[in-house]
Amino acid sequence: MVSQKVQRNFWPKVLGAGPGSSKYFTTILLSSLKDAETVVASSRILQEIKKISATDAELIELPKGGELYEFLNTIKSKERTYVLSTGDPMVSGLGKFFPESEIEPGISSIQKCASLIHKPINDSAIISSRYKNNYGKISHLIALGLNVYLLPEPELTVSEVVKKIASNVGYKLRLHICIDVSLDTERVYVGSVEDFMNLDDNGLKVIFVEPSPS
Amino acid sequence: MVSQKVQRNFWPKVLGAGPGSSKYFTTILLSSLKDAETVVASSRILQEIKKISATDAELIELPKGGELYEFLNTIKSKERTYVLSTGDPMVSGLGKFFPESEIEPGISSIQKCASLIHKPINDSAIISSRYKNNYGKISHLIALGLNVYLLPEPELTVSEVVKKIASNVGYKLRLHICIDVSLDTERVYVGSVEDFMNLDDNGLKVIFVEPSPS
Repeated sequence: MVSQKVQRNFWPKVLGAGPGSSKYFTTILLSSLKDAETVVASSRILQEIKKISATDAELIELPKGGELYEFLNTIKSKERTYVLSTGDPMVSGLGKFFPESEIEPGISSIQKCASLIHKPINDSAIISSRYKNNYGKISHLIALGLNVYLLPEPELTVSEVVKKIASNVGYKLRLHICIDVSLDTERVYVGSVEDFMNLDDNGLKVIFVEPSPS
Repeated sequence: MVSQKVQRNFWPKVLGAGPGSSKYFTTILLSSLKDAETVVASSRILQEIKKISATDAELIELPKGGELYEFLNTIKSKERTYVLSTGDPMVSGLGKFFPESEIEPGISSIQKCASLIHKPINDSAIISSRYKNNYGKISHLIALGLNVYLLPEPELTVSEVVKKIASNVGYKLRLHICIDVSLDTERVYVGSVEDFMNLDDNGLKVIFVEPSPS
């Protein structure tokens, strides 16, 4: 027996809002904002919403750290409330906290990075090392012929992340590193593991790992 | 030495247009359409553009099959020409044909599927079996603790794809299957490998593979 899944339809609704700039807002996000009574989002996304006067709704900033979980419980089942997830709700986003809600995708930082570096997202793995030590998987994925998009720990600098990659992977690698995609401070680097050993840059990072071409 | 990559800036520009419905058009896509002299896209996306009167540009339908590659060469370096890629240009899309062009992401069918089935895209691999036999990788990825989003051969029915998965994977699996996401014909199924052995449904498919919960 094959069960056909039913659309969820409970409040709040959860929408992806893109990596930072309102250029990546979707039409469904904009029409939802017009309908909203309450909009919950990060301070960066709220700034973008105000800049383009996208809504008359009450705007509430998402708390950071441990307070987040408690706060998300307080808005469960609140009508006409929209929770915006920076990037895509299902790419290390807020979707997982709302199993009963309707969710709509948004452009993730991984996609903007892939567009900037001209690398495919298909035939790739997307892993995060924020809550799990996933560094050990990278060499297995490369051996399988996949590339890897890594969302690393936010507090680590580029050199700290690259040292963790290097100590786990035996292959010669080429890395592309996207930071703060879609923001005014956006920057993209490319090089070998050795090239990044002393780069103390930090920001919202996406690291693309592929075997070295040589 | 770390080289900072430079933004590409050659025509045509390539933009993701979402999985089918204009609800997933981005603001940057809509403003590009206003600026365009020529817009190249699939017939489905062109229909959506006409429905919302998004542009005064000349609209050209992308040819299918072998003619596609020849056609794409004829529009290289044509000014104010925008090539729209259904979904995201870097997820089995048109981005790879334009190494010199600026590319902008779009919502892929994988993302819409993930939102519908409430499954994460992080800690997952995205593989396509359209041009490569990637079925053999699925069991390795599951063993690594990753889930798999598979974009299968378009001509195969659900039962034909599931039989290929079953013959390659030793694990007990749970499958979620999204077809025609964001279109009026959108449907989502969930079940075990056995459940799908006789489902002759077809359409634009995304198959999510995870270990069976039992």
